[in-house]
Amino acid sequence: MTLHPDVDTAVALACDAADAWAGSDGLRRAALLDRLAEALENDRPALVALADSETHLGAARLNGELDRTCFQLRGFASLARDGGFYGRIDDPAVAGPPPAGRPDLTRVRVPLGPVAMFSASNFPFAFSVLGGDTASALAAGCPVVVKGHPAHIGLSRRVHQLAQGVLRSLELPEGLIGHIDLDTHAAGLELVAHPGIQAVAFTGSLAGGQALGRQAQARSQPIPFYGELGSVNPVVVLPEALEADRGSLAKTLAASITQGSGQFCTSPGLLMMLDSLDARALVGQLAVEIDQIGLHRMLSERIHQGYVQGVAALKRHPEVRTLTSAASTEGAGNGFVGLVSAAAFLADQALRHEVFGAACVCVLATSLDELCAVLAAVGGSLTTTLLGADGGGERDRRVFRIAQKISGRVLFQGMPTGVAVTHAQHHGGPWPASTQPLFTSVGFTASDRFLRPVALQDAPLWLMERCGVPV
Amino acid sequence: MTLHPDVDTAVALACDAADAWAGSDGLRRAALLDRLAEALENDRPALVALADSETHLGAARLNGELDRTCFQLRGFASLARDGGFYGRIDDPAVAGPPPAGRPDLTRVRVPLGPVAMFSASNFPFAFSVLGGDTASALAAGCPVVVKGHPAHIGLSRRVHQLAQGVLRSLELPEGLIGHIDLDTHAAGLELVAHPGIQAVAFTGSLAGGQALGRQAQARSQPIPFYGELGSVNPVVVLPEALEADRGSLAKTLAASITQGSGQFCTSPGLLMMLDSLDARALVGQLAVEIDQIGLHRMLSERIHQGYVQGVAALKRHPEVRTLTSAASTEGAGNGFVGLVSAAAFLADQALRHEVFGAACVCVLATSLDELCAVLAAVGGSLTTTLLGADGGGERDRRVFRIAQKISGRVLFQGMPTGVAVTHAQHHGGPWPASTQPLFTSVGFTASDRFLRPVALQDAPLWLMERCGVPV
Repeated sequence: MTLHPDVDTAVALACDAADAWAGSDGLRRAALLDRLAEALENDRPALVALADSETHLGAARLNGELDRTCFQLRGFASLARDGGFYGRIDDPAVAGPPPAGRPDLTRVRVPLGPVAMFSASNFPFAFSVLGGDTASALAAGCPVVVKGHPAHIGLSRRVHQLAQGVLRSLELPEGLIGHIDLDTHAAGLELVAHPGIQAVAFTGSLAGGQALGRQAQARSQPIPFYGELGSVNPVVVLPEALEADRGSLAKTLAASITQGSGQFCTSPGLLMMLDSLDARALVGQLAVEIDQIGLHRMLSERIHQGYVQGVAALKRHPEVRTLTSAASTEGAGNGFVGLVSAAAFLADQALRHEVFGAACVCVLATSLDELCAVLAAVGGSLTTTLLGADGGGERDRRVFRIAQKISGRVLFQGMPTGVAVTHAQHHGGPWPASTQPLFTSVGFTASDRFLRPVALQDAPLWLMERCGVPV
Repeated sequence: MTLHPDVDTAVALACDAADAWAGSDGLRRAALLDRLAEALENDRPALVALADSETHLGAARLNGELDRTCFQLRGFASLARDGGFYGRIDDPAVAGPPPAGRPDLTRVRVPLGPVAMFSASNFPFAFSVLGGDTASALAAGCPVVVKGHPAHIGLSRRVHQLAQGVLRSLELPEGLIGHIDLDTHAAGLELVAHPGIQAVAFTGSLAGGQALGRQAQARSQPIPFYGELGSVNPVVVLPEALEADRGSLAKTLAASITQGSGQFCTSPGLLMMLDSLDARALVGQLAVEIDQIGLHRMLSERIHQGYVQGVAALKRHPEVRTLTSAASTEGAGNGFVGLVSAAAFLADQALRHEVFGAACVCVLATSLDELCAVLAAVGGSLTTTLLGADGGGERDRRVFRIAQKISGRVLFQGMPTGVAVTHAQHHGGPWPASTQPLFTSVGFTASDRFLRPVALQDAPLWLMERCGVPV
């Protein structure tokens, strides 16, 4: 594979910066992360305007996303300051023969090295140049090389320039935060293939993620590929939740499905219920609500075309009844709600695939067994939402067991869109929601992806004094 | 791929047992693990005799290995009792708008499901039917399906029968510990391909591991493949360590290299030093010591042939001077010590490959730069041993940084053979030492391989009362 000189230069600069950054202490890492947050906030009006011009996501959402991005940077700064990333475990020597007798062992975690980070189309701040992947990698002691997303490449360039200014002001090397400004699939593959890269973080399509994941495995030294490749995010509404304020539930669901024109990785794409008059009424109300919500233009023409084709296939499907009335004419057009029986859903694998955008398929089951079969058939998903499961009877436990098996987050209230950045968060789930379901890309354990344990046996004093600060 | 009926049956039984075992509490898991250790100890004389007849490893080593295996089972029992595996993190709700405002989130870890476990040739107890992989998987809540190793299949059968007796006495399903008794590569591939299997643990050859790893990735749902694929375990002897008792160091090195006829994953295969009269004297003494140690028969004829061919290639190599004098005639024959310059070592990639058995290549470097280049060239290794690095000067720090980069454990005293089973242990390292260098196959964090986080958002009381015991 021939490497584009831009890829080679960016990775070479990251490699040059790697050892010193791996050896930096938590205070230095925290200073960088805090200053990056400050730089974003100081340039807020211009950044939000530029992001809106490229993504059409609107100032309110983009200001909120910038807040979240700064919150993440500062949260990882705080963790770096605490030194918790080193995950140090001490086992003092025990005299006597093995297995109980043992030498002195201390386990610390060390950074993997330069991380290739692929910006997501749908989060121009929070999953881009200075987003959660970058913050968690820098906090872990790894430089990053970001492949900017073509849907907001102008913003990527500006944010990267801001970052470079911060690096200069702290006398840190430019290679700590690299940026690749090439709109080709080849450049992405070359970045993953580069021997200097030691891990990959990716949020995007199943096809794109699979191609990059194969490349990560095909290297002479395979490396971890952390990919978030899509999710249908089922919402199960149990009868108890239908007895409450159905109108309000329909509005909440409609708002979640259409939020950001449905371009969230946790956007609910499947609603499933036991068939009843109440259930059918909810589906009808949901369609009315969605018909009333005008969607903003989608992130790119390619994404819009994908949505239009996905909805067209659902409309054509002989077993799917279209409940929304509006026609999709330009931009994102309108949301879509379709209705299908559980039997028909189970019979056609195509109905389980994500349509990226404001489309929701409602599945009505005739029995609890059928409802469980539908949920199990969904496969790996970032989230499953269970509404009305507060009782804890055998039905609730059974549905929960399946929800837990297929997803990385199970909600009992609210909607899956909106992902809190906390320690307990887990944004990942069985394949294809995540290629590495044991790790998360959101929340403060996201740095675990970039840290490798090393056991130090009978380490001398000079080393233990600095643990876990690498020497 | 057509499945052998034995593979299909074993995995189907494991799947049947999975939900109830995932829902079992720590006390139940601990009871099983403790009883398995007891069963091994009660049958000790017969087990050790059978193991010795198949592996030739000798009663002393096999009794010690059985002790370690029971120690592991009881250690994981103790962890299961404590409930620490659930790794619960609680983030209570915070009022207000995001990003600071958030719902209530609790993160727990849930078992992945049935684990395929491939027994290693060289540890008939500790990496086999009831070895560390099985103990860590059962403790995590996962059934296992063990592929018995043909080098000790009689022992595998007997241990599996013991395990079945324990399962019956505890009224646990037979599928919790399955055993596949088929001596074909196809059976291994079929086991990994089976949709019921959710993770794979493997210790063995690079070629075998790569084939199984590719199969794990080629599934419609890829699964984690935890493979330990070989390691050369460099030992760096710095001048300070040569000034001490050189004769004793030569004896210790020789004992480690020849232990178990060199059939340890942490057997030292490379010795590297700055060239000096002392260094040359140590190499000479090492060869004399190794010539005096008779090796026992190797584990299998295939392994022995591999060793003979590896040594023959070293003897033929124009740049390698053979220092040991004995000829390899039958069985393992004798150990091998060769000497090569750093320049020649760096010029030929073939010299970096592991020769499984009691072979050690000594590399003499003319400068610290060259020594560092040799160490860096080794690539991923389970261990690196640094003797004489107690001062902590710039030289020690520089060599340590490289050691840390290429290995999962860095020793400052003693020899890498013998792996203590503790919390701080890390038995894994950059590829190919491990296919998943963020995880360990020895020590009490080995269960991390089989547990997946799930975030519970606004979980109801009935669920929180049972956390982290799955419902």
